[in-house]
Amino acid sequence: MVDSGLDHSGQVCATYQRAAEIIGRRWSGAILRALLEDATQFCQVRAAVPDVSNRMLSERLREFEAEGIVKRLVIPERPVRVEYRLTEKGRALEGVVDAVAAWAEEWISSEETGDEQAADRA
Amino acid sequence: MVDSGLDHSGQVCATYQRAAEIIGRRWSGAILRALLEDATQFCQVRAAVPDVSNRMLSERLREFEAEGIVKRLVIPERPVRVEYRLTEKGRALEGVVDAVAAWAEEWISSEETGDEQAADRA
Repeated sequence: MVDSGLDHSGQVCATYQRAAEIIGRRWSGAILRALLEDATQFCQVRAAVPDVSNRMLSERLREFEAEGIVKRLVIPERPVRVEYRLTEKGRALEGVVDAVAAWAEEWISSEETGDEQAADRA
Repeated sequence: MVDSGLDHSGQVCATYQRAAEIIGRRWSGAILRALLEDATQFCQVRAAVPDVSNRMLSERLREFEAEGIVKRLVIPERPVRVEYRLTEKGRALEGVVDAVAAWAEEWISSEETGDEQAADRA
């Protein structure tokens, strides 16, 4: 019979689910990509993902911080500077984001998502 | 400055989003894993993912079919047999599911998801 390779207690499913949730939130992919490519300041991430609102970007960064994906550093200069740095856990997401993006690019046609575009600009 | 590598028109973001949504729905990972490991019949997928309800498994399979990830074949035997086969688009998800699962296994502790477990059994 079929051995799915997953722990069927539901535990592995739950961790998979959580991971998929983290990378699947609106704008997560683009924000992670910007951070992976060394954007460290809010305005740099914002410049790399211009369609995201300040509010949503703040929210995502706070969530990433709470999940241990991003570390928020306050640099005691004048004026005080805030930097966002991926943790090791966050850097490890690179392969995941790449895999999702590559599959999407190959298999999801832009027509399919066309009418959702307006709603995506939130 | 930062070049994120994504098309900032929002179009790539939208296809990424759609892909993340597909693999991120509840039980999608485990169901895809079962199909990737050659479960073809409803009862085989069910056996590989015992915590999923019949209703939810039917729903996921219908969604996969609508998205061109799974093909539903009706085999004209007596009694009629129904098989679910991954399409090429569906098989291509293997790397994505693997990447998410590997990251989750390494970085998400089971404690984090512990209290969501009961809700996951739907």
